[in-house]
Amino acid sequence: MPSYKAPIDDVSFLLNDVFQFDRYDNLPGFSDASRDVRGAILEESAKFAEEVLQPLNLPGDQQGCTRHDDGRVTTPTGFKEAFRQYAEGGWLGLSAPAEYGGQGLPVTLTQMMSEFLTSANMAFGMYPGLTKGAMAALLVHGSDAQKQLFVPKMIAGEWTGTMNLTEPQCGTDLGLLRTKAVKQADGSYKITGTKIFISAGEHDLADNIIHLVLARIEGAPAGIKGISLFVVPKLAINADGSLGAPNGVSCGSIEHKMGIHANSTCVMNYDNATGWLVGEENKGMQGMFVMMNEARLGVGIQGLAMSEVAYQNAAAYARERLQGRALTGPQAPDKPADPIIVHPDIRRTLLSIRAFNEAARAMVVWTALKNDVAHRSDDAKDREAADELLGLMTPVLKGVLTDGGFANAVQAQQVFGGHGYIVEHGMEQFVRDARISMIYEGANGIQALDLVGRKLPRQGGRAAMAFFAEVSAFAKENDGSEAMKPFVAPLSAALGHLQQATMWLMQNALAKPDNAGAAATDYMKLFGLVVFGYMWARMAKVAQDKIAAGDGSAYLKTKLVTGRFFMERMLPETAIHLTRVQSGSATMMELPAEAF
Amino acid sequence: MPSYKAPIDDVSFLLNDVFQFDRYDNLPGFSDASRDVRGAILEESAKFAEEVLQPLNLPGDQQGCTRHDDGRVTTPTGFKEAFRQYAEGGWLGLSAPAEYGGQGLPVTLTQMMSEFLTSANMAFGMYPGLTKGAMAALLVHGSDAQKQLFVPKMIAGEWTGTMNLTEPQCGTDLGLLRTKAVKQADGSYKITGTKIFISAGEHDLADNIIHLVLARIEGAPAGIKGISLFVVPKLAINADGSLGAPNGVSCGSIEHKMGIHANSTCVMNYDNATGWLVGEENKGMQGMFVMMNEARLGVGIQGLAMSEVAYQNAAAYARERLQGRALTGPQAPDKPADPIIVHPDIRRTLLSIRAFNEAARAMVVWTALKNDVAHRSDDAKDREAADELLGLMTPVLKGVLTDGGFANAVQAQQVFGGHGYIVEHGMEQFVRDARISMIYEGANGIQALDLVGRKLPRQGGRAAMAFFAEVSAFAKENDGSEAMKPFVAPLSAALGHLQQATMWLMQNALAKPDNAGAAATDYMKLFGLVVFGYMWARMAKVAQDKIAAGDGSAYLKTKLVTGRFFMERMLPETAIHLTRVQSGSATMMELPAEAF
Repeated sequence: MPSYKAPIDDVSFLLNDVFQFDRYDNLPGFSDASRDVRGAILEESAKFAEEVLQPLNLPGDQQGCTRHDDGRVTTPTGFKEAFRQYAEGGWLGLSAPAEYGGQGLPVTLTQMMSEFLTSANMAFGMYPGLTKGAMAALLVHGSDAQKQLFVPKMIAGEWTGTMNLTEPQCGTDLGLLRTKAVKQADGSYKITGTKIFISAGEHDLADNIIHLVLARIEGAPAGIKGISLFVVPKLAINADGSLGAPNGVSCGSIEHKMGIHANSTCVMNYDNATGWLVGEENKGMQGMFVMMNEARLGVGIQGLAMSEVAYQNAAAYARERLQGRALTGPQAPDKPADPIIVHPDIRRTLLSIRAFNEAARAMVVWTALKNDVAHRSDDAKDREAADELLGLMTPVLKGVLTDGGFANAVQAQQVFGGHGYIVEHGMEQFVRDARISMIYEGANGIQALDLVGRKLPRQGGRAAMAFFAEVSAFAKENDGSEAMKPFVAPLSAALGHLQQATMWLMQNALAKPDNAGAAATDYMKLFGLVVFGYMWARMAKVAQDKIAAGDGSAYLKTKLVTGRFFMERMLPETAIHLTRVQSGSATMMELPAEAF
Repeated sequence: MPSYKAPIDDVSFLLNDVFQFDRYDNLPGFSDASRDVRGAILEESAKFAEEVLQPLNLPGDQQGCTRHDDGRVTTPTGFKEAFRQYAEGGWLGLSAPAEYGGQGLPVTLTQMMSEFLTSANMAFGMYPGLTKGAMAALLVHGSDAQKQLFVPKMIAGEWTGTMNLTEPQCGTDLGLLRTKAVKQADGSYKITGTKIFISAGEHDLADNIIHLVLARIEGAPAGIKGISLFVVPKLAINADGSLGAPNGVSCGSIEHKMGIHANSTCVMNYDNATGWLVGEENKGMQGMFVMMNEARLGVGIQGLAMSEVAYQNAAAYARERLQGRALTGPQAPDKPADPIIVHPDIRRTLLSIRAFNEAARAMVVWTALKNDVAHRSDDAKDREAADELLGLMTPVLKGVLTDGGFANAVQAQQVFGGHGYIVEHGMEQFVRDARISMIYEGANGIQALDLVGRKLPRQGGRAAMAFFAEVSAFAKENDGSEAMKPFVAPLSAALGHLQQATMWLMQNALAKPDNAGAAATDYMKLFGLVVFGYMWARMAKVAQDKIAAGDGSAYLKTKLVTGRFFMERMLPETAIHLTRVQSGSATMMELPAEAF
């Protein structure tokens, strides 16, 4: 059976030391999140993740969700009670506005908690995750009445939320969407169509499910300019707030899928279901993007979370499994064999995962703080800069953390040898669960295109230039430090590669857009490596300062060794990505479709 | 539902043109395999794979194997009949000696057929695969009586074979093996112990199962020097060849595993089972290595096979799935969207897989021919050189083809977006099935250690030097050709990296063995890339010559474009592997075990 321990030490180091959370005290909600309060929140959510959610993970995968003949869906044993505890703990509204019953605490804390929940039980974590996305869209684009009707119930966990975008013929290309909406005399709409891959589409965790649905109003323009967003409750809501008759929306089937079996992924049939417009007619993409951006950050965290729990179990196994002897001679001569952690190749594997996880976690905190600034600062310029950087980093975070998270789960499984392939050890579930994060909320190829085609060129590349300047400034500041040299020199080289790749895109992609498409994935990976390198350099600096100030903890020593491993073995991968970016699109576009 | 078409064109190009099969006419069996005979064999085995095995693959995964209370195991519907057809087709003995009922044809043809079978149905392919491994061990180390008793029945498919190595406490480190053997007055042994992960350990495909079992004779030395190999039939064999009472061996349970559900992976309990020694006492590792080397080549082919079938389905989906428009404007303006194959990122994905597959297939043919030479040539020097090269390439083929095969199955699944995660499309099964090949028959980290620690230094590095010389000579021969420059220049650079890495190992690994362990995986990948680069250069040369001679086929044009893609985007990865090799073991060995 796998186990999990939330990495509170590492989160605390990032919040307190590296990113100096207390500097943001002027933002609403931050002063309520003092060091002690943060600590208590992390401890409590860790406890919930470790003690309540983690034990449900393996059984939940094996039991899965069950659709009954009447369309009801039952979640695995224990999920309903766990969700009730989660809701009662107030976790759903941790960062939601106080006026709707939330606690108004920084988003940064919610993101850290998400990592814990997801490591413990990814399929469970998706239920509140979707609800938070739906709340975010309603809070930004809903009417006051809609906010007051839906958000408090969602914060309370009495109702949950969903996102209904995909249809059989329409995935990435939402312009192909067919679900239709017909306006009624009372201002409501009748919604009809079929949605697929709807996570948490139907279940038994809450009294009502609030579906946010993209549909096309009769007579609307073709393509994405004719798409509107609707809110469609599963059960009608009476004027007094009580629940009424079923609306015309039902779960037609549960998808049979590779993993996240404990999350009910539904085909949802809308048959003249009553819905209400959210935001303006034909402006549904705006609301969709609010949900989507929220979801993309959450999915990126899934990549980290799966990588972390897989790492922990692989490291524990490597310390315990006795097999063979060290190349340098027996290390545990009293035992029949040495633990496999004596082998360099096992350490290489573990450190590769660990170096990824710690950089990824730093990136999550760094961008989450930008998220808080973008939404809470009273300085318009600060808000804009933070929002632009968050926009630029969102596809990188989603793409790089989920690609890496999956690859790391596979590598962690490999440490177990044949035992990793066996269900009972839980490692293969991490792999199957982690796999979806590379696909949903925009497959990673789409993230790469979003980065290269939209986020990078926005405002003449201002956000990227600001990031490059920030990294350069950091490198310059630490230029004279001998101790920082193993971090600063590789970081500067990697930044140089990223700048060259960016220059190449500016010179070659405008005239020939296929060059952007051909470069996109490698550019995204290159970008991610540089962000990770920057995170490592910042962590190393703070660790060195703390050590110099007398902190002799093993945690800090391990941090520095792990950082050097990243700099020596992982960051240099930027070179191959630059080579690929610069190789252009000519060769891959040469063949006719039928040659493939 | 997934589909499959055996790549006969590509195999024929490799056999007939690139490796000039007819040059080997002087070897036994080759003259029986004329171009027409080869063609007929490929056609027939393709037909069997496509029409009989492929339709059983998805249902077989879903149904899985069933263990009954009495220990019997039932394979999925259709497997028994398919195995009967397979056996009656004579496929099990295609390359086996004629004196035992085989056809004596080149191993190279059997390997090509293995690719087809495995692409169509990997779980099925394992049943004959294990039987061939067991036959190989008996043919090399068995007594005449054993060969005559077992091999003809195995060739006929009436009996199948297994390999029993692993025990709960003993995977890679066979020295920890506990299964014991007690000698009886009649010369037989009583075998007692528990073996796990035994593929095809119990099933309903054959009348008897011939287990090859590693065990320790009472009083034998500790470690691998005290291990002997035994043959233990499931049912006793009477003097007249008829089957008798059950022997003391039974399937205790079927493992619950991530994939290859249609192959019965068993816990096998030996309880005073009667067995006979194969080869000499305490020399069991020799027989094990015969099976293991055979199996490693077969497992490498699994990597290719999964990559190929995943590619075919992804390419077909990419040609059909309409979503979005080309970056350069609509390519199918009459349709609601363009097929996604217009997108560079999709082509990048597909070409990466294809370039891998075609190089891997060339490597399989190249090494299979060495295998034939090593076993059939009447020139001792030729045999030795071929055997050394095959030994060097075996871990590379196993490690690189299975790592890449899995990664490619994942990338092919990604082309399907959300649909790739759904069971019915079959892509997720390819991923789950392909995953095991990286683990069994020596996890890939062990392959890398085998390469660096045993195969490379053997005979003072003679095999590697011969390979480097062969590649250099090829590069020199084609030095003046402008057409070959895009192939030869990157190949020479990559070979340079491999030579530098080899030199680094010679200088740094002897004194400090951890440097070898730390470098092993990257060295293996670097080696594989150079082999692939060499294969591509050879294929390109032949394709160019054929084109110059008037062959205008689309096949050859596609071959050259795919080869250039490999040279531009994939071969340059050698640089990062060299960097990692040269970074040594110091950082990763610095942390105490408890820091992980």
